[in-house]
Amino acid sequence: MEYRLLIDTSDDKGLVYNISKTLFEHGLNIEHNSEYVDKEVNKFFMRSVISGEINETKLLQDIKSILPKDAHVKLSPKAKKDIVILATKETHCLGDILIRHHSGELNANIKSVVANRDTLKELVEKFDIPFIYITSDDISREEHEKKMIKAIKKFDYELIVLAKYMRILTPKFVKTFPKQILNIHHSFLPAFIGANPYKQAFERGVKLIGATAHYVTDDLDEGPIIAQDITSVDHTFSWQNMRDAGRNVEKIVLSNALNLLLKDKVFIYGNKTVVL
Amino acid sequence: MEYRLLIDTSDDKGLVYNISKTLFEHGLNIEHNSEYVDKEVNKFFMRSVISGEINETKLLQDIKSILPKDAHVKLSPKAKKDIVILATKETHCLGDILIRHHSGELNANIKSVVANRDTLKELVEKFDIPFIYITSDDISREEHEKKMIKAIKKFDYELIVLAKYMRILTPKFVKTFPKQILNIHHSFLPAFIGANPYKQAFERGVKLIGATAHYVTDDLDEGPIIAQDITSVDHTFSWQNMRDAGRNVEKIVLSNALNLLLKDKVFIYGNKTVVL
Amino acid sequence: MEYRLLIDTSDDKGLVYNISKTLFEHGLNIEHNSEYVDKEVNKFFMRSVISGEINETKLLQDIKSILPKDAHVKLSPKAKKDIVILATKETHCLGDILIRHHSGELNANIKSVVANRDTLKELVEKFDIPFIYITSDDISREEHEKKMIKAIKKFDYELIVLAKYMRILTPKFVKTFPKQILNIHHSFLPAFIGANPYKQAFERGVKLIGATAHYVTDDLDEGPIIAQDITSVDHTFSWQNMRDAGRNVEKIVLSNALNLLLKDKVFIYGNKTVVL
Amino acid sequence: MEYRLLIDTSDDKGLVYNISKTLFEHGLNIEHNSEYVDKEVNKFFMRSVISGEINETKLLQDIKSILPKDAHVKLSPKAKKDIVILATKETHCLGDILIRHHSGELNANIKSVVANRDTLKELVEKFDIPFIYITSDDISREEHEKKMIKAIKKFDYELIVLAKYMRILTPKFVKTFPKQILNIHHSFLPAFIGANPYKQAFERGVKLIGATAHYVTDDLDEGPIIAQDITSVDHTFSWQNMRDAGRNVEKIVLSNALNLLLKDKVFIYGNKTVVL
Repeated sequence: MEYRLLIDTSDDKGLVYNISKTLFEHGLNIEHNSEYVDKEVNKFFMRSVISGEINETKLLQDIKSILPKDAHVKLSPKAKKDIVILATKETHCLGDILIRHHSGELNANIKSVVANRDTLKELVEKFDIPFIYITSDDISREEHEKKMIKAIKKFDYELIVLAKYMRILTPKFVKTFPKQILNIHHSFLPAFIGANPYKQAFERGVKLIGATAHYVTDDLDEGPIIAQDITSVDHTFSWQNMRDAGRNVEKIVLSNALNLLLKDKVFIYGNKTVVL
Repeated sequence: MEYRLLIDTSDDKGLVYNISKTLFEHGLNIEHNSEYVDKEVNKFFMRSVISGEINETKLLQDIKSILPKDAHVKLSPKAKKDIVILATKETHCLGDILIRHHSGELNANIKSVVANRDTLKELVEKFDIPFIYITSDDISREEHEKKMIKAIKKFDYELIVLAKYMRILTPKFVKTFPKQILNIHHSFLPAFIGANPYKQAFERGVKLIGATAHYVTDDLDEGPIIAQDITSVDHTFSWQNMRDAGRNVEKIVLSNALNLLLKDKVFIYGNKTVVL
Repeated sequence: MEYRLLIDTSDDKGLVYNISKTLFEHGLNIEHNSEYVDKEVNKFFMRSVISGEINETKLLQDIKSILPKDAHVKLSPKAKKDIVILATKETHCLGDILIRHHSGELNANIKSVVANRDTLKELVEKFDIPFIYITSDDISREEHEKKMIKAIKKFDYELIVLAKYMRILTPKFVKTFPKQILNIHHSFLPAFIGANPYKQAFERGVKLIGATAHYVTDDLDEGPIIAQDITSVDHTFSWQNMRDAGRNVEKIVLSNALNLLLKDKVFIYGNKTVVL
Repeated sequence: MEYRLLIDTSDDKGLVYNISKTLFEHGLNIEHNSEYVDKEVNKFFMRSVISGEINETKLLQDIKSILPKDAHVKLSPKAKKDIVILATKETHCLGDILIRHHSGELNANIKSVVANRDTLKELVEKFDIPFIYITSDDISREEHEKKMIKAIKKFDYELIVLAKYMRILTPKFVKTFPKQILNIHHSFLPAFIGANPYKQAFERGVKLIGATAHYVTDDLDEGPIIAQDITSVDHTFSWQNMRDAGRNVEKIVLSNALNLLLKDKVFIYGNKTVVL
C-alpha cells in the first residue's frame, strides 16, 4: 500500500539524510519525493510517496524522534477522502464535481451536499447523494451556522468544499473546521474582494477576469491561496458575460485545487501555501 | 493612402448607413470596419480603415454633419507616430522598445528618452536617440515636472510612453498631456496598487503575477486599462524571482498596448477602453 | 424579436452602405454589427444582430437583390437551437453539456444522445434526455452509420455535437450532415492527428497539451478549426496524467465552440473559420 | 560557494539516503533539492544546490562510489556560463538576449555572435560583442559549417544558442557540439515542422500559434523539448501578423529555456527533458 508522508519543520542540517535513513531502515521504497526549503524563515517541507509494509505507529515515532521539536508529521494512506460540499444555488462548480464523482475521476466520496437554498436539490439527488436543505431565511447567522455545523458533523469528512456557497462564515464556523475548508472566489484575489466581483471587474474595465481557490480563514477572501487562473475579456462583455465566462475558470480552478488537497499536496504556511 | 477614421458618439438609428453613405459618396474604399454599440449607455464607436483619394477637410465636415452633436471624429493617416519615452533605471521595457525601433518593427519614431536617472544613458545613446537626464534629486516634485514638461515639449510627440518611469505624476503633469500618456504597472490591476507590487504579491502568496498597461489619469494606477496579462508563480519564488518573471510580462503587455495606440485602435470611454 | 443576419459574399464597393441602407429602409435597428474583409481573396463577411418588426421573406429578397450573385445570406432568429449529441463512453464533455443544459445556461435543446456504447445511458437518463444505444460491435461501419443516421434523423436538429464520439466517420456520413457536425479533438491540431494523441504527446515529450474544436469534413481531424486551447504539462506527467489534465481543456474548448455555433458566430471559409 | 550537483542513474533502493549521507559526511548544506523517479523505465534524476567547503574531486569520487554503474554525475559551480550565439538576420531573439546581457540580468557571458549574414553586425557591435560574419553564399553546406565550427571553437563556450539561425545543420555539426545546442523553433512542435511554420499555420487556420525551445539533435526540429508557449490568433491575422505576434512568444520561450540551461536545471533523457 502507498502512503504519503508530509513533514514540515524548522530546517536543520542533515534532515534529508536522517529522514531517508529512517525510511531505508523501515525497508520502505520512496516512490516520489519533493522538498522545499524556505531559507528566509528557515522552514523545511517534504512530501514523500512511500510504499512497502508500513508500521504506521512505529514509523511516525521514529520519524519524529529525528526531527526538530516543532515538526509536524502526517502519514496519509493513498485512498479516497470523505468530503462534504456546501452550496447555494449555482450549478457550475457543484455540477462539475458531481460529474467527476459519477465518472470515478474524483478521488473522494461525497458524503452530502448541504445548502442554504433548495435550488440544487433535484440535481444532487439525481446522483443519489444526500441533499440537506437548511434555509438561511428568517434566522440569525449564528442559528443558521449552528444547524449547518450539526448537519455537517453527522457525516465523516476530511474536507469541506464551498462550491459557490454564498454566505459569509463567522470565525466560530471557521474554527470548527480548522484547515479543512476550501473555497472558490470568483476573482483573481486580492483584486475584487467581497461581493459581486464581476460587477466590480466590469466597472473597473479589466481585460482579464479570474478565480481563486483558497483555504478559508477568519478574514473574508484572505485565506491562503492554493490555485488561481484567468481568462480574457474585452469591452463587449457585460458583467453577466464576465460572470458566464468566469464560470469555466471557477470550476476548473476549484477542481484543480480540490485535486491537490485530495492528493495531500498542500501545506499551509503562514498565510500562504506550499504545493509539493 | 490609407486613413483611420475614428468616431465615437451617442447611438442613433441609421448611423452605419449614414456614415457608409458618406464614405461611398466620397468614392472611398472601406478596407476594414469595426463597430461597437454600448446599449446600456447608448454609445456608438466605429473604427474604419479607408483608402482612396481623400479630401480630409471635406470628409470630416460631411461626416460630422450627419452625426449627433456630441460626436468625436478623428481622421488619422496610417503613418509612424512620434513618441517620447520616460524612464528611470530599469532596462527591460525600454530595451524592448529600442530593439523594435531598431529593427523597424515599431511603427513609431522615438524622438527622445527623458529620465530622472542617468543609468540608461549609455544604452539609449547606442541607438542614437537623444537621452535627456533630469535628476529628481534635491528638487521639489513641481520643479522636476516643470523641467520634464519643458524637455518633452521640445519634441514633436503624439504619445508619451512611461517605460517603468518610477515617479508619481501630479495632476498638473497629467493634464498637460491629456489622453497621451501610456503607463505599464507591474501588477494585474486593481490588485497591488502603489509601490512594490511584487513584494505585495509575495506577501499575499498569489499563484499568478501580472502587468497592466493603462492610460494615465489623475489617480495613481486608476486610469483606463488597455491590456493585461499574467504568468504563473509558485511558493519557490522570492519577490525578486517574481520581479524577474514579471519583467517578461511587463515588456510584452506594454509593447502590445503601444502597438494598439500606434494603430489608433483604442477609444477612451469613461474609465474604460474600447479596443476596435 | 432579434435576428442574426449572416452574409458572406465576394467583396464589392459600397456593400456596407447598401446593406445598412436596406436595413434602414426596413425600419430595423442594428444592435450589433461585425464585418471582416479578406482582401487577399476578396471576400466579405458580415454578422449583424438586428431587431424590430421583421418581414423575413421580404428582407432576404431585398438583401439578396443588392449583393453579388455568389452571396450567401442567412437570417436566424435568436432562439434555442435543437442539437443531437453523439458519444461513446467518456463522461467529461457530455457531462459538461448536460450540466449546462440542466441549469439553463446552454442555449440549446438536447433532443437526444446517440452512442455506440451503453456506458453513458445511466447518466443521460438522469437528465430525462432520450439515450439511444446503437452498438458498433459485430457490424460493418456502413451498417452502423446507416443506423446512426436513421436514429439522428428522427429528431429535429440543426447541429450534431461529437462529445468524444470515438468512431471514424465515413465521407457518406459527413455528407449527410453538411456543415452541421462539431467535433472535439484531444490535441492542438495539426499536432497529433489520429489515434491516442496523449500517448503521442507523451512520447514526443511536449510541455503543453491542448484540444481543438472543429467542423468535421471528409478528412480525419482536418476540418475548419473553431477554437483551441492548451494547458501546461511537464516530465512528471504520464500519458494518463496528460489525458486527465487534457479533459478540462477538451470540455471547455468544446463548450466555447458550441456557444459560438449556437450564437451563429462562425462562418466556414475554405478550410478555415471566420468568427464574428 | 554554491554548486549544483546533477545525478541521473538507474533507480535503486536507498539512493536518496546514500547521496544525502555522502553530502552530510562532507559537511555540506543542501540549499535546494529536487528529485524525479520515472518508475516505468526505472530512472532516477536529482538536482541539488549545495553549499559549504567543497572538495570537488573527493566529492565526485564518493558520490560515484555509492551509485549504480550507469550513473552520470555533474558538479557545476553557480557561475556565469560562456555562450556563443548563432544568428541569421532576425532581431527579436538576439536583441532580447543582448538587452538582458547588457542589464546584467542574463547569467552568461556572450563570447561572440556568429552569423551567416551581416544584417545584425551593427546591432551586435553596439554592445561590444565580437560579431563574426561567415557568408553561406556560394559555398557548400559542408564548407560553411567547417568555417562556422572553426570560428566557434576559438571561443570558450558551454552552450551554443541558435537565436533564429535559419540554416539546417548537418549531423556532423550537431555531433561536434553534443547536448550543447539550444534552438528556438517558431511553432508549437510537433506541429509545423520545417520551413515557414507561420505560413503553414495560416494555411491550416489555427487559432493559436506557438514556439518551442529544444536541444538540437540529428533530426530537424525533433530534439528534446525544453519549453513551449503559445499566443492566440484569429481569422484577421495574415501570416505576417502571425509572425509578428509569434516573435514575442519566440523570444520569451528562448529566454526561459536559456535560463533553465544556465541554472543547470535540464536533464536530457531519451528524446525528452526532465526539468528540475
